Order: sequence, then C-alpha cells, then structure tokens
Amino acid sequence: MKQYFPSVSAVKYEGPQSRNPLAFKRYNAAEKVAGKTMREHLRFSVAYWHTMKGTGSDPFGAATLPRGWNRAADPMQQAEDTLRAAFEFFTKLGVDYYCFHDRDIAPEGESLRESNARLDRMVSLAKKLQADTGVGLLWNTANLFSHPRYANGAATNPDAAVFAHAASQVKKMLEVGLELGATNYVFWGGREGYDTLLNTDLKRELDHLAAFLRMAVDYAKKIGFKAQFLIEPKPKEPTKHQYDFDAGTVIGFLKSYGLDGHFKLNIENNHATLAAHTFQHDLTVASAHGMLGSVDANQGDLLLGWDTDQFPTDLYGTAYAMLVILGQGGLAPGGLNFDAKVRRASVDPEDLFIAHIGAMDAFAHGLKVAARLIDDGVLRDFLERRYASYDAGIGAAIEAGKADFAALEAHALEHGEPEPRSGKQEMLENIVNQYLLGMQ
Amino acid sequence: MKQYFPSVSAVKYEGPQSRNPLAFKRYNAAEKVAGKTMREHLRFSVAYWHTMKGTGSDPFGAATLPRGWNRAADPMQQAEDTLRAAFEFFTKLGVDYYCFHDRDIAPEGESLRESNARLDRMVSLAKKLQADTGVGLLWNTANLFSHPRYANGAATNPDAAVFAHAASQVKKMLEVGLELGATNYVFWGGREGYDTLLNTDLKRELDHLAAFLRMAVDYAKKIGFKAQFLIEPKPKEPTKHQYDFDAGTVIGFLKSYGLDGHFKLNIENNHATLAAHTFQHDLTVASAHGMLGSVDANQGDLLLGWDTDQFPTDLYGTAYAMLVILGQGGLAPGGLNFDAKVRRASVDPEDLFIAHIGAMDAFAHGLKVAARLIDDGVLRDFLERRYASYDAGIGAAIEAGKADFAALEAHALEHGEPEPRSGKQEMLENIVNQYLLGMQ
Amino acid sequence: MKQYFPSVSAVKYEGPQSRNPLAFKRYNAAEKVAGKTMREHLRFSVAYWHTMKGTGSDPFGAATLPRGWNRAADPMQQAEDTLRAAFEFFTKLGVDYYCFHDRDIAPEGESLRESNARLDRMVSLAKKLQADTGVGLLWNTANLFSHPRYANGAATNPDAAVFAHAASQVKKMLEVGLELGATNYVFWGGREGYDTLLNTDLKRELDHLAAFLRMAVDYAKKIGFKAQFLIEPKPKEPTKHQYDFDAGTVIGFLKSYGLDGHFKLNIENNHATLAAHTFQHDLTVASAHGMLGSVDANQGDLLLGWDTDQFPTDLYGTAYAMLVILGQGGLAPGGLNFDAKVRRASVDPEDLFIAHIGAMDAFAHGLKVAARLIDDGVLRDFLERRYASYDAGIGAAIEAGKADFAALEAHALEHGEPEPRSGKQEMLENIVNQYLLGMQ
Amino acid sequence: MKQYFPSVSAVKYEGPQSRNPLAFKRYNAAEKVAGKTMREHLRFSVAYWHTMKGTGSDPFGAATLPRGWNRAADPMQQAEDTLRAAFEFFTKLGVDYYCFHDRDIAPEGESLRESNARLDRMVSLAKKLQADTGVGLLWNTANLFSHPRYANGAATNPDAAVFAHAASQVKKMLEVGLELGATNYVFWGGREGYDTLLNTDLKRELDHLAAFLRMAVDYAKKIGFKAQFLIEPKPKEPTKHQYDFDAGTVIGFLKSYGLDGHFKLNIENNHATLAAHTFQHDLTVASAHGMLGSVDANQGDLLLGWDTDQFPTDLYGTAYAMLVILGQGGLAPGGLNFDAKVRRASVDPEDLFIAHIGAMDAFAHGLKVAARLIDDGVLRDFLERRYASYDAGIGAAIEAGKADFAALEAHALEHGEPEPRSGKQEMLENIVNQYLLGMQ
Repeated sequence: MKQYFPSVSAVKYEGPQSRNPLAFKRYNAAEKVAGKTMREHLRFSVAYWHTMKGTGSDPFGAATLPRGWNRAADPMQQAEDTLRAAFEFFTKLGVDYYCFHDRDIAPEGESLRESNARLDRMVSLAKKLQADTGVGLLWNTANLFSHPRYANGAATNPDAAVFAHAASQVKKMLEVGLELGATNYVFWGGREGYDTLLNTDLKRELDHLAAFLRMAVDYAKKIGFKAQFLIEPKPKEPTKHQYDFDAGTVIGFLKSYGLDGHFKLNIENNHATLAAHTFQHDLTVASAHGMLGSVDANQGDLLLGWDTDQFPTDLYGTAYAMLVILGQGGLAPGGLNFDAKVRRASVDPEDLFIAHIGAMDAFAHGLKVAARLIDDGVLRDFLERRYASYDAGIGAAIEAGKADFAALEAHALEHGEPEPRSGKQEMLENIVNQYLLGMQ
Repeated sequence: MKQYFPSVSAVKYEGPQSRNPLAFKRYNAAEKVAGKTMREHLRFSVAYWHTMKGTGSDPFGAATLPRGWNRAADPMQQAEDTLRAAFEFFTKLGVDYYCFHDRDIAPEGESLRESNARLDRMVSLAKKLQADTGVGLLWNTANLFSHPRYANGAATNPDAAVFAHAASQVKKMLEVGLELGATNYVFWGGREGYDTLLNTDLKRELDHLAAFLRMAVDYAKKIGFKAQFLIEPKPKEPTKHQYDFDAGTVIGFLKSYGLDGHFKLNIENNHATLAAHTFQHDLTVASAHGMLGSVDANQGDLLLGWDTDQFPTDLYGTAYAMLVILGQGGLAPGGLNFDAKVRRASVDPEDLFIAHIGAMDAFAHGLKVAARLIDDGVLRDFLERRYASYDAGIGAAIEAGKADFAALEAHALEHGEPEPRSGKQEMLENIVNQYLLGMQ
Repeated sequence: MKQYFPSVSAVKYEGPQSRNPLAFKRYNAAEKVAGKTMREHLRFSVAYWHTMKGTGSDPFGAATLPRGWNRAADPMQQAEDTLRAAFEFFTKLGVDYYCFHDRDIAPEGESLRESNARLDRMVSLAKKLQADTGVGLLWNTANLFSHPRYANGAATNPDAAVFAHAASQVKKMLEVGLELGATNYVFWGGREGYDTLLNTDLKRELDHLAAFLRMAVDYAKKIGFKAQFLIEPKPKEPTKHQYDFDAGTVIGFLKSYGLDGHFKLNIENNHATLAAHTFQHDLTVASAHGMLGSVDANQGDLLLGWDTDQFPTDLYGTAYAMLVILGQGGLAPGGLNFDAKVRRASVDPEDLFIAHIGAMDAFAHGLKVAARLIDDGVLRDFLERRYASYDAGIGAAIEAGKADFAALEAHALEHGEPEPRSGKQEMLENIVNQYLLGMQ
Repeated sequence: MKQYFPSVSAVKYEGPQSRNPLAFKRYNAAEKVAGKTMREHLRFSVAYWHTMKGTGSDPFGAATLPRGWNRAADPMQQAEDTLRAAFEFFTKLGVDYYCFHDRDIAPEGESLRESNARLDRMVSLAKKLQADTGVGLLWNTANLFSHPRYANGAATNPDAAVFAHAASQVKKMLEVGLELGATNYVFWGGREGYDTLLNTDLKRELDHLAAFLRMAVDYAKKIGFKAQFLIEPKPKEPTKHQYDFDAGTVIGFLKSYGLDGHFKLNIENNHATLAAHTFQHDLTVASAHGMLGSVDANQGDLLLGWDTDQFPTDLYGTAYAMLVILGQGGLAPGGLNFDAKVRRASVDPEDLFIAHIGAMDAFAHGLKVAARLIDDGVLRDFLERRYASYDAGIGAAIEAGKADFAALEAHALEHGEPEPRSGKQEMLENIVNQYLLGMQ
C-alpha cells in the first residue's frame, strides 16, 4: 500500500536523553502511573481538520504545507487518499483515537443529497480502516461554519431554512457517529453568535439554539446513539461574540433551558484563554459541575488575541490539566484531542509527527507530576486544613443549611476578629516547581 | 449651615449652546421623552464612595483631592460632615438618588458592636437628610472587601469565622436598607473569587456563596425588607478570577442554586468590558432573562486592563444602553448610578459637578437618540423582517417545539440551498450615526 | 460599457435628514471648511485589496461575497474586469484616489518574469483608466506576505534568495509607481517579524530590513521616482511579533539606521489599537516627529484581538484624527485610504457603497468638529495656559538648555511646594461632546 | 541586636529533594556554571519598596501584612528599624545587592530641605550596614510618582516648578548613589505620560523629558558618579500612556535626542508583557542594541491587565531570560532585582523568604538550562544553518551593502523560486522542554 510518510517508522519511546526528534522521551504508552497505563489515562486523539486537512493558509497568505494526500484532481479520490494517510499517521504515532467534521472526510457536494452520499462512501472506508487498525472515533461533529450559508449562524441563523440545513447535517452526523462507534459527539457553535446587536435578536437566537440541541438529543435517543454529547465553549472568533462564551456561560445556558442532563463540556485550552480564563479554570468549573467530558488539548499565545491552536508543550499547562482530570477520576469516555496545528512555516511532513510527539510527551510528564502531587497529598492536605473550619461548628452549620444571619451575627459578636491566615501562594508555587522538575 | 461647595449654585439646564461648564446642555429634568420626564426615565444616583470618599490615591500615589469634609480629626465628625456635604451635592446637582456601602457613611470601629453603633448614628442622620431633601436611597450594600479580614474572601472565605463576620455586616445593612427605604440592595463580590487554584476549593466556595445569598433572602423576608436584590458582575480585580464574572455566569450560578427568582443584576459598563463584552451585551443578556435590575453607569478605557471607573460620556455607550433600557420598559425600581470617579488630577471640587453634568447630559442625549430610534421603528422593523421566517411554516414549527430533525431534513432536501441575505451591519451603523447627530 | 454596479448611480450629497442609504449626509465634496474644500482636506482613497478583491473568507469559512467582476475563467480577463469595475466604483463613489498591491491588479504568474509581464499589461490599462477618470494613485505597494515563499519573511527572511525575490518585486513596483504617478509608496512588513525567538536572529533580521529599505531609497532615486516613502506600523498578525510594532518603534528603527530622512509613516487606526494605543496616539507621535505621511482610515474592535478592518464610523475617532491632521496642516501628498472591508455577511454589492459612504460622512463630520474646535481655540488656549510656566523664567531656561540641576534645586528650595492644578479632563471631554453634537 | 525574623536562620542550599520551604533547592551560590559561580552570574537584589515597605494594600483594600519594623510612632525610628530589618533579611537570604527609592528609606518631610536631611541620616546608616554586611547597592532611584505634586508628571509636568522639584530629588539621589557606591542608577517614569491627549502637548513633554535626562547626565559627570544610567520601560499604569512604553520606544527616544550613549535599559518582565511583548523579546531588543543593562526580575499574569509584580517562578521565563543574558556575556554591573511582592494574603513574614527562595531557585535552574543549551550549541547551530545564505554570495553582498535592486532582480530571475524550508518551531520547543527537565 502506498505510504504517505515513508521516511517515518512507528514512533518509539526512547527515554528522556534521546536526541531523536521522532521518538518519545516521556510518553511510554504501557507504563503504569497511578494504577493505569499512560495510554489509558491520556486517551490521545488526532484532529483530522488540522493534521490532515490543514494547509498552512492564514488571513494573509496562501497554503504552505505540501501534503502527499491532497494531490488527486478528483475530490473523492483526494478524500480517500487523505483518509488512508490519516490512518497511517495514527498508527505510526500510536494514538488510539481521532476526531473529524463531516466536511473533513468528505467534500460537500452540489446538494445535501450528494454531500450525504459522499459522506456515506467515506464512512464506510473509515469503518474498515478503524477495524483494521483498532483506532477508534473519539468524537465526530458537523461543520456548521465554513459554508457561506452559515455566515449568519447555523442554529441561530435568522433564516429558518438555514436552521433546517444545519439540522440535516447534524442528523446525518449522529447517524455517522452511531455507525462508527463514536463515544462522544461535539457541538462547537462556530457561527452561533453575533457581530453586532444592531441586527440581532439575542433572546430569539438563544431559544433557537436550545431548540436545536433538544432535537439533537431526541434524535440520538430515537436512533439509539448513546455517545456523550459535548458542547465546546469559545468566546469569540469567528463571530464577535459567541453564545458558548466559556464553561460558566454554557452551563448557565444549559440549565436555563433544562438541557444540562444531556450535555457535558469539551474544554479547549486556547478557547479558555481567549475568554480570559486559565485552562485550569475552565476545566475546574466544568469538573465542579460534573460536566467535564473531554478536552481539546492545545495551547494559545496569551499575547495574541486569536486562536493559535498550538501544540500543548507548556508543562505547567499539562500538569495543571492532569490535576483536574485525575482529580475527577479521568476523562473517559472523553479524551485528549490535539486540536492543534503545526505553524505554517513548519513545512516538513515530519513536523506533524514532531509536534504530536512533543505534545504527548508534555502530557505524559504532566500526568506523572499530577499523579505524584496527588499521591503525596501535599495540595489536598493543604486544602483540607484551609477549609477545616467548615467541618464542624458554625462552619458545618453553614454547609448544612442550618445557620442563619442571626446565628452568624451572634457567633461573630462572641468570637471577635478572625485570625489572619496566609494563603501560601508562593509556597505552593514553589512546590509545583519541585514536582515539575522531578521530586520523588 | 456650612456649605461645602459655596461657589456652586443649583445646576440648571441652559441648552446645547451654553458654554457654562456648570450647566446642563442636554439634561432637562422635566422635559418629556417618550411619555415620561427625563428624570423619571434616568433615575440618576450618586455613588457615595467615589464622589464623597474618593481621595485620588492609586497604587502608585497618595491622595490628591482636597475635600472640605474630610478634615475633622474625629472620624465620626468627619462622617457627619461628609454626609452633609453629600446632600448638598445631591441637591445642587439635582439627582434623586444615592448609593453607599456601610463603611462609606460610618467608619469601622474596634469591634462589630462599635461599628454597628456608629452606623446607627449615621443612618439616623441620613434618614433626616433624606426627608429634608427628598433624595432617596437607590441601593445600599456592605463593604466586604476593604478590611484585611476579607483578604481571602467574605462569603467564600476558607475561614467560617470570616463568613460569619460578613453575614453580620449584611444583616445589619439589610436592616439599614429597610430603615432608609432603599428600593434595591446590591451584592458585589469584591473578594469572592481566587488568586490561585492551588489553594482554592472552587466548588466548596461556590456552595458557600450560594448559602450566604440564601440566608440574605431569608433574612430580608423575615424583617420585611422588600428591596430588589441585585448581583453586580465583575470578572477580575481585585482577585484574579471573580466568581461573578459576567451576566451569563451569574445567571448560570443563580439557576444552578435555585436562586434566580430572588435576584436581578446590576450591570456596570466597565465591568462588562473587563469581561471582554460590550456594555450593551451584558445589558442585553440580563434583560433577555428578565434580570436587568439596575445599572452602574460609568465607562472604562478599553486599552487598559483595570477598572478606571470614568464618567460615562461616550454617546454611543449611552444611546445603546438606553435602547436596551427603554426596550424593557425602564429600570425602576433600579436606576443609573454613577459608579465613576474624577481623575486624580481633577483636583478642583467643581470637577465633581462637571463630571456628573457631562455624564447626565450624555445619558439625556442617549435617551433621546434611543427614543427616536424606537419611535421610528427602524431597528425593530429591520429585525422583524430579518427573523420573519420563524413567524410561519417550518420556522414557527421550530419555535413551537413541533419540528424534529427528520422534518427539517425533509424541508432542506425539498427546498435546496437557502438564499444569502445581507446582515446590513454597515447600513445600520450609518443610521445610528444619523440619529446620534440629531436626525428628526 | 459593461456596468458592474448597474443599480447604483453617482452618489450625491443629500444632507443630514436624507434617508437614502446611497447618499451622503455629511460629506459635501465642494463645501469649504477652514479654507479648503472637504475633497481637498480628506483626499479619500479606496483600497483595492478589500473593496475589489475581498471575498468574505475568514479562517473559519469560505468566500461569501458575490462579485460580478471575478467570474471570468481566465485570470487576466478577471483582472481586467476587476480593474474596470474598480474605476466604475471610484467614480460613482466620487473619490479621487486608490491604492493597490502588485498582486491585487495582476495575478502572480509561474515565474517572476511572467508576473512582471502581467503587471505591465494591467498597469497600462490602469494608466488609461486614470487618465479617463481623473482618479489618481495615492500609493502602491508590493505584496510580500501572501505567497508561501514569504512564510518566514521577505526582507527579513533567513534565506537570501527570498530577500532577492522581494527586492525584485519592490523594484518593479517602484517602476510602476513612477509610471502611474503615485504620490506615495508604502512598505507594510506583513511577515517582517518572528513567530518564535528560538529560530530567529533578531539583530541580523533588522539589519537586513534596513539594508532592504536603503536599496529601495537608492533605486527610487536612480529612476527618478519622487513619491513619499511610507512605513506602515503593525504590532502583530500575521506574525507573533512584527518589527514595525508601532509609530514609536518604527521611528526608533529608522533613526538607528539613519533612514529617518527618507520615510514617513502611514498610520492605521486598527494597527494602533492592536498595539494598545489609541489611533490619536500613533497619529500624534508620528506628527510630533514630522513623520505623519498618510492614514489607513479604518477602525477595529477593541474587544477583539485581530485586525477587523472595519469602516471608520466612530465619530470620536474621526474627530480626534482630524484634529491631528488639521493641526499639522493636512496630509498631502498623503490621504485617507479606506483600508476597510465590509463584513462577510454584507453580501449585497451595494453594501460596498453604503460602507464607504458611512465612513466618508464620518470623516466629513470629524473634519467639521475639528475645524470648529481649532477655530474657537478652546483646546489650544487651554494648552497654552497649562504650559505657560515654560514660556518664561526657570521654565524657559529649561527649554533653552540653560538650566541645570543645581539651579533647579535652588529654585525648588526657594519656591517651596508647587500649587496643585486640575488637569480638567472631564471638562474637556464634555466640550468635545458639545462640538461633536454641533456646537456653533 | 533586635531580630525581625527571629524564626528564620540563614537560608541554606539543601538540594532538589528538600521539603524545607526555607531552603534553596536549586540555587547553590558557590556552584560553578559555565565558568562562574551562580552568585556571580545572577547578582540577585532585593527591592526595598516591595519587601520592606509593601503593606499588602490594593485599590480595594487596606494593608494586610504585619511587619515588625513599621510599628514605631516616630517615622524616623520606623525608617531606621526598617533599614536594620532589611539588612537582616538580605544577609539571611544571602543576596549581594539591594535597590531603593529615596522615599523608601527616608520619609518625605515638610520641605525639600527636611526631606534631604532625613535622607542624609538614613544614608549614613545604610553606608554603615553595607560595610558591616558586604551587601551593596545595585541601584537607587528617586520616587517621582507618589507625591500629589507629581499627579501630572515629574519631568513632563506642565508646571516648571514641579520639573524643578523632580530635578532636586534626582540631584540628591545621584549624590546618594555616589556616597553608597551604587553601580547603576534607574529612571522609571511612573507619571511621565498622559491620561488624555486633550490636555497634553506630547512633543513639548518629550522635549522636557530629554532635557531632564541630559541634566542628570551632566550632573553625574560633574560629581564623578560613574554608575550606569538605566531607563526602565513600562507602557501604562499609572498613566494611560507612558512615554517609556517598551524597549523599542525608549531606544528610539534616546536616539532621537542623542542620549543613547548615556543610558542602557532596565527590563522588567511584567512591564514587557503589559506592552504585549514577551520578557524575552524586550530583553533581546535591548541586548541587540547593546543596551541591556539590568533586569527587574518578576512576572505578571498575562490574563490580567495590571502590573502584578509576582515573584518569577515560571521556569520558561527564567531559562529564556538567562539565554539572552548569558548570550551577551552577563549583566554586570547590572543584576537581577526582584521587583516583586508577596500576595496580600501571604501574611506570614516567612512568606517573604519563601517567595525570594522560589525565585532564586527558578533563576538558578534557568541559568543551568541556558548554560547547557549554549554549551551543546543546539540553538546556535540551528541558527547558523538557517542564515547561512547570508554568509556568502548574494547574501554576503546584501550584508556588505554591495547589492542593489538591479543585482537582486538579476539573481532572482536567474535562480527562480526559492526552496521552502521549515522553521522547525515545534522541534525547537520540544528540545527546550528536554533541557528544562534536565537533559545532560
């Protein structure tokens, strides 16, 4: 069979001192950490849109990335070549999952009918390749933002005909997810938002969005597709304001419309930081509500105001993320999907491998750091002591809903000024650095 | 009686061509706009903390603003002088409302008991001055952020003793609000947030915050204080992350804890922009949920990353705000409170008047622009046409909850590609400019 | 001759009360303001890349804007159609200038030789159309950022062969500018910057950039092209850091390399705000150095972190800009080039007219406001009083270089604490609002 | 002698596995790295204003930090206690340098004369304590921003009397620097900027600033004070716009006024990031101009818009900084001054030690990482290969100023399209992670 990455063999673990850019230094799939293998913990996934379909174009320039699989003149041949190249990439890299949009794997046709037919053809190939390789579908989703018809939104479009078109695409993709055994299904509202309130009925659009999601829930139930539904927050870009701004906003929206039982969140680092939050914050908010379902593992540039979708190599970021993830007992059926792209000047096809390897190593290290921090209990013990006043007495009464303002005033009058206690932020940050560098 | 602003007489309306900095050019209190007087629409309030207590200090420098009312050596005498100066200011300016924190009008004592006694004394003077002048209390609130005991939060403090102290302050201020006839009561969580997640149990803190608010609701009911409760969102500053990040987050929080029936929002322009939203956005989100209760009328500097609390003079800001406010039938029992301060180099006491006059004129103009836009129906008509597809057929079925994915797919297959329609953003922006400049 | 905008006639001035979206309400070309016609003051120019070549695509979606002139299969036919449509647009809109990149008017060929030949053919048509219509070329420039060869920079590319290619393009465009009578020539360093310092020799790249500019100066001199050279600052996007960050940085760079006598600046509003400055700031900095040459008249969204290139309709922005421009006696030979694009949902071709009309009206109003403020002298008189202490005595000695620290200390010891004086920011802002709304 | 930190002994190096929060884990003063001891490389300095004078107050709250040395009723006694506590802190921590403003060590008096007399008294004690301990003065500076007289600027104040007062303060501090053997003198223009251009003559203010600096140069020469003069850039805060925006702007300013021979830069991490640059960027810009003189070693929070002055613990930040510093052969006579403060909730006096220890460990690790990267040559070799085309042929001609546009065009026509080459950003980032985690 034709190879698209002939110069790259299956990537191996060679350890921290290896100078081979095409080897893992930290990620050792079978190594056990905190009772499970790294592979089981991390559940890595490749993002089809960036890795297979990304061209390196940006608003100021054309495609830069030469790819062996996008040369065929016939779009369906190109789609098939791309899918085969993808599975070669997945297996050489050694990841267990991938994710895609409908339009990533099959080009849109002249009509919805033709688009669906093309999709069917590619899905059937994907099913075969999944079976051949053991690589599974972490999640699929519909692209409701690229086509001009979605310029004013999909489920929140002022035109009901566009809503209907979007519904058709999602209907189809729920069927595809069922067919391919996807364990999750993602909704990212890329154009669900507004550019100016002058032309927008925000309330009516939110109602439509909720109606859309409700129909998706109903349809999945109807066909027996049991994947976890996920909403992926993002505050802006492409629209000026996106309705799914951040974890807190999405949770509020779901609760307002009684949909919170049906959805969890897919948190992306770069989306969190565009919303002026840390990655860890949005993970924590989602997790605190029992709604952290999956993660788009990338990182942004905090000095830039757009989604740079860089590969996650910041070791603080991966360690803090794994603290939250281990803290809730893991992500399954979700996983860590690399919604990340190589820089447009990284024109060597092997840069795709190098970039994923660096990210996988960074998460492997983050996993170990987090596991050690948890195992040693340093942070947990500190927190327990810090909040201990709520474990008994007036604090316990507050938590039990048995205190009222009168009782609390009496307590305050009796006990006088509370004792100041240090928050110890610097000490805790120093400890994190020690663990990051390998404290045993 | 001693005058604190002897050189300033009652501020009068002199019309747009006046060159008197101490006269209104746009705000004509008794003038009717859209069926009500400007005074009734705008419900202006002065913020005690900035206008009476502001000193001009900042993190890099000491107090700059000479004030005749803060010279007494005895703190209670100073408090009384300040209160008298305040009512002189309110009446000369011609506003109907004011707002304060407990610690603004009475200095904190050595103990809670002493603090409360001081407060009682000042409240009784305030009651008399209100009766004498007809100026009312728009809202009051407790300062749960300045004292060192609140360094780690008030209702979200890891120490239950601090929670109790905060509860005592709010209990007292609910009583004060009742006594002074406040029509609203505000919660701004100035330290309810975190600086690092390393030392924070976010979930537990949110639970405590909800418990606190629930007790406040219960206590107000118990004493018969019927003011509208308001939460004021702010995303950050002083803490790195504040739990009441923005309108969407607060609404989600209230719904999560079943508190949404008891609270509305007090939206501040500068807080909205710190959260990366427009003022109009957060007003619209609150209003769309029926939860826009009151407004902190100021403006920030979008190129600076902290709360500059400037007087609102941007005419786009005031016009857009009044569009939302008129659109929901007004703010009462809320109002427009100038949570704004003169720059620290604006050292002339008359600058206090000039600043308020400019803001009142700007809102008066914004009111007229909004009223004319609404009266002419240009924006409303545009919106009605834009969403008309949801008024009948498949769109109406979507809104009625009678459509499902199968029906929508059938519709899409039958009707083919939707027709592109322009969002007309530029045309609408041009229209706003025409109205801003006085189109009749 | 084929018309590309058959439904639009020449745009006329109809005055402030007109409800015709295709008429001017404020811009009256022949009206005199401060001794010159509006047309002479404002020197409006249309940006070929956005208005003629913009497609509405963005990083998340495909082209949305249907254009009658980009349908021909043959790229050179398309280029010719576009050029003819452009001149129809310029003349119907009533602007006197336009601007373009080499690749806007002629598609890049297989080789530099072919690209140049194509350019020659289009330049000759442009020359004819300029002569036919009287529309002139405000400035031209070379596109050194779109082609993949420039992924790592043009003049700052680590590969000298790319430097050579860029030099060839600029050489050609200097010849084109001469041929078409351009009064300015612009350098925008779209890829002159870096994405990571790990792979960048910043010093060497700056040296190369200076060498490049020096060669451009020499070549223009050699061929007798006397246009004003302009550098256009931008801080980031597409690269993480662009060397021409802002006005201050570019002036420093030019002075460091002894190039400041040969260049002025082309200041863009949205680039200034991306650099965390106001538009007025960068205009003022450039003007203070005698280096404000021309303006890219647009506006950004201060809550978004990328270049939105919106049409300038904010009346504060246009008034403040015109204050600086009138303050230095005008922009000629520069002008106001609308480096702005319609939103991608503004799909009606007439939206192009509406957008330009709104911007021209906004600048016409800004011009009148600025002229009245200057004529009344309110700001100037305030400034003169504020700095009066430097007009005599110790202040004059400071300015004359005749004071030293010993003399100043003696003065300070003798005179004691200086008197505080209000900066009067609020009063000045109120005055601006009065003029904005039409104070006579 | 009274001890202010009785519970803390001299801080010792205990190695990476130590769990003692009051021990160094990475900083081993006498350990040799790249030919010098860590102590010689790092030249740590404590910032008097934060560590000794910081109170924990912020714009929303009062002082929180209990300090044994600020209890005396008499301000001069308090100043003396503070100075003694400072030297106890310096010696227990084991740093060789400190920095201060005039008003940090001696309280301002009723008159300039009294202020100077107080300063003399404290300087004489400081001289004795320096001699006793061997701790030296890295730099001193004058506080020209805290007193109300500087509300509108110091050297850029519209009032020449304020300019004179500022000059007197700096004159005195140059004398103090000479007396105490300071090796540098810093100018931070805390109020040298503007809040609104409406009341500002930017050009005149820049002229005054240059005049001021020139007089400082002259006076230092006159008295024989040979310290390196440093300007510290900051873009905003407290003023809206500060003239010393960033490294590039300051260098441009110095060159414009012919002052660049007399000044280098003191680069602060948090100031660089407020200017939308990385720390490494501003260090590199300064170093590329031969003007990197010293470093204010702290870090900010990139999601917050104000100067948080946190202790530098981010290991990427310290490694990248040390790459630039080692790359230019060190900082001497400058050093790494911790312009950083403990969080206001870090109320334990020992938190001051813990915070400095964490920062010193972080820089020690950064030093080792940088030294290893440099020693292995991985980055250098990559750069040399990347720019090799400028070492010969047409590239060398460009650098030598011997190429012109005609020659470059001929070269481009002859050689055709340049070969694409990967920027290898991901590979380089992966390598940095390996070194960060200890690759030998």
